[in-house]
Amino acid sequence: MSTPSPFPQAASHKPQASLGILGGGQLAQMLALAALPLGVRVLVLEPDPHAPARECAEVIQAPYTDPAGLERLCGCDAVTLEFENVPTLALAALEGRVPVRPGGELLERSKHRAREKLALHGAGAATAPFVVIEAAADLDGALERVGGRGVLKTCELGYDGKGQVRIGSQAELEGGWAALGHVPCVLEGWVSFGREVSLAVARNAGGELAFGGLIENVHQHGVLRTSLYLPGDPAEARARDLARRVAQDWQLEGLMTLEFFELPGGGGPGGELLVNEVAPRVHNSGHLTQDGGGLSQFEAQVRAALNWPLQDFAPLLPCAMVNILGWRQGQEPDWPGIYRLSGARLHLYGKAHQPGRKLGHVNLVAPDEGTLRRRLSELEALIPAFIP
Amino acid sequence: MSTPSPFPQAASHKPQASLGILGGGQLAQMLALAALPLGVRVLVLEPDPHAPARECAEVIQAPYTDPAGLERLCGCDAVTLEFENVPTLALAALEGRVPVRPGGELLERSKHRAREKLALHGAGAATAPFVVIEAAADLDGALERVGGRGVLKTCELGYDGKGQVRIGSQAELEGGWAALGHVPCVLEGWVSFGREVSLAVARNAGGELAFGGLIENVHQHGVLRTSLYLPGDPAEARARDLARRVAQDWQLEGLMTLEFFELPGGGGPGGELLVNEVAPRVHNSGHLTQDGGGLSQFEAQVRAALNWPLQDFAPLLPCAMVNILGWRQGQEPDWPGIYRLSGARLHLYGKAHQPGRKLGHVNLVAPDEGTLRRRLSELEALIPAFIP
Repeated sequence: MSTPSPFPQAASHKPQASLGILGGGQLAQMLALAALPLGVRVLVLEPDPHAPARECAEVIQAPYTDPAGLERLCGCDAVTLEFENVPTLALAALEGRVPVRPGGELLERSKHRAREKLALHGAGAATAPFVVIEAAADLDGALERVGGRGVLKTCELGYDGKGQVRIGSQAELEGGWAALGHVPCVLEGWVSFGREVSLAVARNAGGELAFGGLIENVHQHGVLRTSLYLPGDPAEARARDLARRVAQDWQLEGLMTLEFFELPGGGGPGGELLVNEVAPRVHNSGHLTQDGGGLSQFEAQVRAALNWPLQDFAPLLPCAMVNILGWRQGQEPDWPGIYRLSGARLHLYGKAHQPGRKLGHVNLVAPDEGTLRRRLSELEALIPAFIP
Repeated sequence: MSTPSPFPQAASHKPQASLGILGGGQLAQMLALAALPLGVRVLVLEPDPHAPARECAEVIQAPYTDPAGLERLCGCDAVTLEFENVPTLALAALEGRVPVRPGGELLERSKHRAREKLALHGAGAATAPFVVIEAAADLDGALERVGGRGVLKTCELGYDGKGQVRIGSQAELEGGWAALGHVPCVLEGWVSFGREVSLAVARNAGGELAFGGLIENVHQHGVLRTSLYLPGDPAEARARDLARRVAQDWQLEGLMTLEFFELPGGGGPGGELLVNEVAPRVHNSGHLTQDGGGLSQFEAQVRAALNWPLQDFAPLLPCAMVNILGWRQGQEPDWPGIYRLSGARLHLYGKAHQPGRKLGHVNLVAPDEGTLRRRLSELEALIPAFIP
């Protein structure tokens, strides 16, 4: 495994390692912020001139399929990404010329719900029951096969609750599929879960693995509102085991976040974990690793993409995160209250305000669980929830 | 106190707050890295085209006294600094046009040893005994008055052990003063201290105070090698009390770090604290606040300079820091070993290599003191000490 000195020549003004990133949003911004102190030069390919990464990285402002932009990325030691919906054409142009981590095959899976679910089963991880809907004939008997109630989701391009319809009857199923434009979909059986949890795993090209902690997530209207990390979650060991299996089976190079439904256990936490979806990158739920003590998910992805040595990146302290979405009139967060709240750290992405848009988050850290939960209630009161 | 929304207009692509920084070295780089997630735009005035701050802030490459550069700084909400030896002319040009924090009077003290020591006494803080040497006549009896043994230091421009001569006799005193060019000096009495410790205090223009933790420092050949923070240091309360007195008496606006000699106590820690020197800014010893959980010294200085609400910034976890100085052949740090050491985080500044130059540091964090001390020994073995 290659772990070069960041000082290859005595008089070099440039660090040796360089990392290309496809996409220049907030995840790329935070990846670049984590890369900078490691001596890693970051080069971003992104069409939007106002993309957040411009504040701390060199941005090539061009379409993802721009040949000159892709050519420049080929000069990096490795290329990683901040979102999975990168055009296949762009990935194909890079392939064989520069290591893309995660690679094309893994990305093709994680950008397509049906492929992802089948590959999860192939790796020995359970999901909710599902039926793939590609033609009208697939609708027959589908609802019964997933338990009579479910959610119809497009195979591609869905995120934050978009491209989803709840289904409770055959008529809703037919109407829902029409509403989604008769594109390929997955009908997922309704899961009465106890908790939504997530866990990230990093794996480098040498096969070395590292894990984040088990994070509990609360969504509102399909968008993540709050994440919570408490050391010693009883479900962590099982989630790590599943993440290890998938990372190894899929030959992950980079970082991957698994979202799980935890089924209600026998009178307490500890029920079965079903994989809901997989993000082949850092994830909103892992932002709390920036301030919980220890490595962040961002540093873990940078290291894994460069095939550097890894370290586990579960926070050392109890910590939490609350997202800041663009607000409606009179619902602006209480900024001075956030600044004053002990252990609260604001992270803004520098994006233009727009109602419902993810503009930033606040991480919260505390010496113990009781203090964290008390402060988290205060923090949630300072950031009004966004109602679409 | 003004704590504006970072989103003043619905369609703004620019955050509202902006901070000017005099100097573009590693401290400015890390201030800018802390400012970015707060939505604070940073503008740096710095003559060196290779200065580390260029990686994450807008840098005006010009002399500190460049009128156009100073004019642009006047457009910021406030100006702060990363080193105290800013030309008085530059400060005078800014005064009255933009808040400079810390302000001119405090800076004039902290860049001049004799003025600083007199002002410390004025605030009720003790120092080692000293005699100001401005003319040959001041040499008479000076050594006796400081206890027969001491260190002669230039009043201005000394740092990292430069501009200092150890004095044990009248002949050495006369020779030492000649070697220092007969510039104004302070002869300080030799202090047989138990520990060197430091503590930072932030104060905003509204008078609100916040404190860092008590950090223990080990120097080698006049340059900081290792800093250590353990929660609950018995000397912390006294150091905070002294820092509060000085910050209030000097009407600090910004952040200030006090370096202390702790005299040996009666059979244990807890002896008197003498102020060695004061830095009107973030300090090498406080770098460990980046990774110890909670606010960093850098965020504290940004907030204080902008007159935002403050928070204490002592780390929540035991943590430490080891500096990386430019090495001699065969003495390069063991980078893979650093990457692998649990809880170690590398921070490189992007400076050209030069033997003895501060190029970066490694922060180390651990769940408890025993683990921290064990890992710190490992870390120190991975970074050979620099022998001048």
